[in-house]
Amino acid sequence: MLNPADAAFAASLAARLPEGTLAPAGPRDLDEPRGRGVTPAALLARPRSVEEVVRIVRACAAARVGIVPRGGGTGLVLGQVMPEGPAPLILSLDRMAACRGLWPEEGLMIAEAGMTLAAAQAAAEAAGLLLPLSLASEGSAQLGGVLATNAGGTAVLRYGTARALCLGVEAVLADGSVFNGLKRLRKDNTGYDLSGLLVGSEGTLGILTAAVLRLHPRPAARATAMLVVADPGAALALLRLVQDRTGGAAATFELIGGQGLRFLDEVMPEVRQPFAARPDWSVLMELGLPPGLEAEPVLAGIYAAAEDAGLVSDAIMATTGAQREALWALREMIPVANRRIGAVASHDISLPLSEIAAFLPRAQAAVRSIYPFRINVFGHVGDGNLHYNIFPPAGEDRAGHAGRAEAVTRAVHDLVHDHGGSVSAEHGIGRLKAGELVRYADPAKLMAMRAIKQALDPQGILNPGAVLAV
Amino acid sequence: MLNPADAAFAASLAARLPEGTLAPAGPRDLDEPRGRGVTPAALLARPRSVEEVVRIVRACAAARVGIVPRGGGTGLVLGQVMPEGPAPLILSLDRMAACRGLWPEEGLMIAEAGMTLAAAQAAAEAAGLLLPLSLASEGSAQLGGVLATNAGGTAVLRYGTARALCLGVEAVLADGSVFNGLKRLRKDNTGYDLSGLLVGSEGTLGILTAAVLRLHPRPAARATAMLVVADPGAALALLRLVQDRTGGAAATFELIGGQGLRFLDEVMPEVRQPFAARPDWSVLMELGLPPGLEAEPVLAGIYAAAEDAGLVSDAIMATTGAQREALWALREMIPVANRRIGAVASHDISLPLSEIAAFLPRAQAAVRSIYPFRINVFGHVGDGNLHYNIFPPAGEDRAGHAGRAEAVTRAVHDLVHDHGGSVSAEHGIGRLKAGELVRYADPAKLMAMRAIKQALDPQGILNPGAVLAV
Repeated sequence: MLNPADAAFAASLAARLPEGTLAPAGPRDLDEPRGRGVTPAALLARPRSVEEVVRIVRACAAARVGIVPRGGGTGLVLGQVMPEGPAPLILSLDRMAACRGLWPEEGLMIAEAGMTLAAAQAAAEAAGLLLPLSLASEGSAQLGGVLATNAGGTAVLRYGTARALCLGVEAVLADGSVFNGLKRLRKDNTGYDLSGLLVGSEGTLGILTAAVLRLHPRPAARATAMLVVADPGAALALLRLVQDRTGGAAATFELIGGQGLRFLDEVMPEVRQPFAARPDWSVLMELGLPPGLEAEPVLAGIYAAAEDAGLVSDAIMATTGAQREALWALREMIPVANRRIGAVASHDISLPLSEIAAFLPRAQAAVRSIYPFRINVFGHVGDGNLHYNIFPPAGEDRAGHAGRAEAVTRAVHDLVHDHGGSVSAEHGIGRLKAGELVRYADPAKLMAMRAIKQALDPQGILNPGAVLAV
Repeated sequence: MLNPADAAFAASLAARLPEGTLAPAGPRDLDEPRGRGVTPAALLARPRSVEEVVRIVRACAAARVGIVPRGGGTGLVLGQVMPEGPAPLILSLDRMAACRGLWPEEGLMIAEAGMTLAAAQAAAEAAGLLLPLSLASEGSAQLGGVLATNAGGTAVLRYGTARALCLGVEAVLADGSVFNGLKRLRKDNTGYDLSGLLVGSEGTLGILTAAVLRLHPRPAARATAMLVVADPGAALALLRLVQDRTGGAAATFELIGGQGLRFLDEVMPEVRQPFAARPDWSVLMELGLPPGLEAEPVLAGIYAAAEDAGLVSDAIMATTGAQREALWALREMIPVANRRIGAVASHDISLPLSEIAAFLPRAQAAVRSIYPFRINVFGHVGDGNLHYNIFPPAGEDRAGHAGRAEAVTRAVHDLVHDHGGSVSAEHGIGRLKAGELVRYADPAKLMAMRAIKQALDPQGILNPGAVLAV
């Protein structure tokens, strides 16, 4: 059983830390973006160094106080809030945001966990390189959270998730010992992949304090286009055509369902849309091209071949930076419009690519059998990752359907499981999906996860209740 | 304490398995390639199914009998032999070598652990795709061993090690439970990365029985060249130039030290060499080019730019398949010549790229201070991975220097550690380097590894003594 981070604990810990390190947590430290849960009360710690993190973790270990690590607070699965249990210590690393080094000739940087993803991208760009990890919340999401949740985003197709871009981490373990895995090495087979295990463990096995990030060469040219396709099957056939013709140059391949564009018409009519009629299905594609290949002829060749194959019926090619930004802005407005409409339920799922075409009609039928909801499908279809979100019919409010959300999610997740998919493609488990993990995970995996958690955090002080319910 | 796989155990296990599954292990099941250690005696099991593996593991768990998993037996760090301790059961998965499925449209295949790497490459090629993992022993190395050791090879620079090419594994854990991680998903954040932990754990956390392997588009054209450079620093500058000019198209970038070419003259004079004088340093480079880029102009452009920058002084461009194969054959003959000369000590090291130039003269001085040995450096320098091998002076035999091997290795490994490198870049720890792991590993990592091993294999039956010494 854990103890609360009460006044006595705070006083005792404060004596071991520089003044101003501890404070009562304010509302901004206790919430999460969708208003689904809050930490009722907590002590906030904002250390300035690994050594201070060690002192905090040791004190929590000695007093059996839970630690909730918090980055930018942008997570969507309640990993950063602890609605139940004794008041925890919230550990923010926002004061540890330094770039400890950037080696352009090695294509890597070492950055601290409190640096925002956008700041890390900017540091790479200043060195003429690319940190390809990119997601909507990159301006506030911090590297610690991005790595702890193995974040995905729009360029996974080519560059992989956060784990693939991380060569090693520094982390404070549950007993206060410091794991230094900050080796600037691309190959290192000295023992188990502890860094890879900590990445994606959502703060339940250790507190990430810094990481070695892989940087890539910047593409010489970008080729961006929005293409109208008949259905998701045609989108996937188009992806194969593109990859074959470009040697795998697609960095982004986003499916956009027509409902998302119609939501824009409904709540953000000021957004200019590229097609006069809203296509039921379209794809936003971005290629990174090497020197020697020009965007326009490559896109034209792809379009001609895809039209011949009956895969596309219309397209907007972005041949200037402004056109490219307009297409991206459209894509980024879809989640904003979604929020204004108000989802009854949202799902971050992935499927084997060849199962998507069979899954979608089954899922639609299952959802509609519950209520005539509107369904908006969009996402990183090149990775098999769809955001499958359910909205009330026009003129109705989400509030009237709260009682149906669970049945909808059960129907969707059951079908995902049936098609060999994942009920958390990129957002993680947090506390929101801890029950789903127990329901759908491989039993041996769950057993092994519990054994690992028990081995590395026997008191259960690290992000209590996240991933593995207490 | 473990018990031997004695006659009583064999009889009891045989009753639970089809006839012919068990046999006394023969010499070919007990050795390793360099003759550094043998398993004195063992029981050999060759199951045909996961269910049979489960029965075997359960019996070993119940009787506390050690299990040594064995693939093609090509490992170089004694992971496949157990020279000390009670006779183990050697578990060969060579009868489980099926391709369970290949999904060209998803770019992946599911293959069983006993399939050779070459067979898996051929299956991918037959589907018009590329399994980019490639290493000298691929004809006999099996996927189970390749994954258990997180093998590297010649294309890591572009495609990553075995772990990066594996989307999930199926494994039998120490209690006989089966972890089914064979999801055909590129994004799946449902809990800890158990597959990634099992990959590279060298059979000490579970028995890999099958894996989902990522396949890549085949490059439209290959551009291969051997280029003469002044020194390793120039080789790395050349690599940066190549990556910038090609958008990161280098799949292979191998450094070849002059000593290796002179060894070929000494013991394999029939091998034709591309340069009349043996260059002290050269690079074997292979690019994978997308459609639209031709090998000859790309290579010519690289050579002209590199010559302008003073990085290269001569080159052989392979513009036909036969020329390409001749260059690769030369690279592959170097380890053969090394074996004929007979190394006093060999080291599989990696270094931060920008440390290589400083490391090499220090290491040479340290080695030469022990004895005037000849040093052959070659390897996957694009990944910072060097094979740093030490040979007797001309006219002397390795046998006379056995007593100096330990001092040489200590000097080399101490310097590697000092420069932030790894003492096992791609071969793993096995039993050969278990002591080196204790010496050089981060203490918190070692502690966490021991806790994980204890949690997942409390009796210590899985590959006893490998990675973590008993």
